[in-house]
Amino acid sequence: MIDLIRIRRSIRTFTPEPVDRQSVDLLVETLLRAPSSRNIDPWEFVVVTDKAVLAELRAAHHGRYNGQAAIAVCANLALAGSPASQLFWQQDLAAATENILLAATGLGLGAVWTGGYPGMDRVEILRRILRIPENVYPMCLIWIGYPAESKPPRTQYDETRVHWQHYRQTSQAESKDELA
Amino acid sequence: MIDLIRIRRSIRTFTPEPVDRQSVDLLVETLLRAPSSRNIDPWEFVVVTDKAVLAELRAAHHGRYNGQAAIAVCANLALAGSPASQLFWQQDLAAATENILLAATGLGLGAVWTGGYPGMDRVEILRRILRIPENVYPMCLIWIGYPAESKPPRTQYDETRVHWQHYRQTSQAESKDELA
Repeated sequence: MIDLIRIRRSIRTFTPEPVDRQSVDLLVETLLRAPSSRNIDPWEFVVVTDKAVLAELRAAHHGRYNGQAAIAVCANLALAGSPASQLFWQQDLAAATENILLAATGLGLGAVWTGGYPGMDRVEILRRILRIPENVYPMCLIWIGYPAESKPPRTQYDETRVHWQHYRQTSQAESKDELA
Repeated sequence: MIDLIRIRRSIRTFTPEPVDRQSVDLLVETLLRAPSSRNIDPWEFVVVTDKAVLAELRAAHHGRYNGQAAIAVCANLALAGSPASQLFWQQDLAAATENILLAATGLGLGAVWTGGYPGMDRVEILRRILRIPENVYPMCLIWIGYPAESKPPRTQYDETRVHWQHYRQTSQAESKDELA
């Protein structure tokens, strides 16, 4: 698991090989099994494997990626319910999206997360092509396919972003001494 | 990987056994290696293993969980940079949080995600106890420990949330026929 997190990278070029249906179904399952605030699961997903629709997305959405499948991760505010419950839907959908990025890596696939909401121009593009109604907000479009590029494990790792016990009170080294 | 996603559940009761330092370091690494919009990594983390600070969090934050470690996942808006880049920080932090929930499961630990931002009352509690400055927004507090409860794999799985090719145009069954 830790290894998967290390080797997962954003893959932006893909081979023409279609993603088999079993893999698509497994990836969709990882979305549906994500945690959500109060278990409300405010999400809906539009899974695209049709070549004509993929071509439309590729032409209109940013990035022009040639993935062989794409999934729009959307919030349905009617599902989210009360205003209080609606506070956390971006976080819920992002957790689901991270599930699929990791699972794709585990299946030998590549994936890239491309932004939608709160970028409303992108929201409108996705709504138009995928016939998504106005009360449903596409938060991102995930492109999926077999990687046509290979990347080394993610190198970003900035330990200065980590505080121990309190914000910037103790350095990691000091804390390690304390705990040793 | 798919299995981990299936068996991951929110664990809310923990044994008194401390989380060993190596596991804490691995979990922190999974946060730091998450993807983020434009690779800005707008996050900072406050890792708490000190018993006194854990007790303060337990008394003041909702849930009263007895985790043996806790991590506040925060956004530093100065790191997030331009207003455009600040649109996506909730999503970035949620992806990092999902990494740690899955990694904890893989390490035999339990974890639960408790909400902070945009619940400003919780933000203020976390800021006070963890001495987090005003430009830093704690989005959630993750409690971690060895599980004192066992739960079956997550059962929620609502296929009606999945649309194929276009929003609610084709049912999954029809789409499967088309692709068969």
